[in-house]
Amino acid sequence: MAENSTLVPVEEYLTSGVHIGTKFKNGYSEKFVHRCRADGLKIINTELVDERLKILINMLSKYEPTDFAVMGRRENAKKPVTMFSKVVGCDSFTNRYLPGKLTNASLEDFREYKVVIVCDPLTDKNILNEAFEQGVFTVAFCDSNNRTNKLDLVVPINNKGKRSLGLAFYLLAKHYLVNKGIVKEKDFQYTIEDFSDE
Amino acid sequence: MAENSTLVPVEEYLTSGVHIGTKFKNGYSEKFVHRCRADGLKIINTELVDERLKILINMLSKYEPTDFAVMGRRENAKKPVTMFSKVVGCDSFTNRYLPGKLTNASLEDFREYKVVIVCDPLTDKNILNEAFEQGVFTVAFCDSNNRTNKLDLVVPINNKGKRSLGLAFYLLAKHYLVNKGIVKEKDFQYTIEDFSDE
Repeated sequence: MAENSTLVPVEEYLTSGVHIGTKFKNGYSEKFVHRCRADGLKIINTELVDERLKILINMLSKYEPTDFAVMGRRENAKKPVTMFSKVVGCDSFTNRYLPGKLTNASLEDFREYKVVIVCDPLTDKNILNEAFEQGVFTVAFCDSNNRTNKLDLVVPINNKGKRSLGLAFYLLAKHYLVNKGIVKEKDFQYTIEDFSDE
Repeated sequence: MAENSTLVPVEEYLTSGVHIGTKFKNGYSEKFVHRCRADGLKIINTELVDERLKILINMLSKYEPTDFAVMGRRENAKKPVTMFSKVVGCDSFTNRYLPGKLTNASLEDFREYKVVIVCDPLTDKNILNEAFEQGVFTVAFCDSNNRTNKLDLVVPINNKGKRSLGLAFYLLAKHYLVNKGIVKEKDFQYTIEDFSDE
């Protein structure tokens, strides 16, 4: 994918609110936040959101759907995550994560993934810790308040909003299938709304 | 690896000249170049060099040495590339690339890699084209004059200098082995000079 054009027009990113951070900011997110709004909300650099999404898409496209899993326990993450797993065909977790799934080989539903994507390193910390322990490639959508240690790839984005996560997973699903040669870009039948609205 | 500290002190990056681009700049490198020196040389953003090197290290650490290959045909790339392949144990190419190695399964030395790293997308275009065709994950060190299409991960850096490439491959080798648990960070016996000087 060319590095010199954004995945969707910048306006689309802005209306989806991918750039709206939280009121908190820590040292980890320093480089992604480019200013602070008058009401205290931190603004995430949209260019970096786009850049990291591209890297994630490129990376993920080299794996089969059975090689990765997505997790999102936050209410607003459920729809995007479920939809993504349905469209792409990978595993997803939107409820409580049963400890040991990645580490305890004697469990019946033990799985070995190569990549684990979480919507928030804080709410999804259980799977993240196990993935980290197992040496799985860890990816997370990180807001301005998240810690980014234990992560291999950080995608800075507003991970609280349904529309924002919807857009991210929509782009991920679409370009994954296109890169895999499963659908043509113009034949991709889903819209951003399918990924974000109930 | 934490996102909030650089791999080596910024001074080290600067003395190695990782930030010195060429006199040319194209649309692909727009976002990596942050200013133009009085003599016309473009200056690459060191922060982005560091950031992308970290992503590359994280990604590569999930693969075995037999899964990837590095290529560098330019004179100044030979020492860093050879040294990297010796330390890490992966394949390397510093001379003419024999066409078909990645695409022609009937050749005796046919190989299937999962990642291919090249020092310059222009001089190493043969392996890059075949890797692209085969759906291999492609990584390249790109200067301000390079085209970045066909690439999955772009690492902006001065890819003409021996010291600059030396530093990049030194960091790659060191952190790869550390992440793999093969050596401890303090026990890594090589220096940047081992990777750059004859």
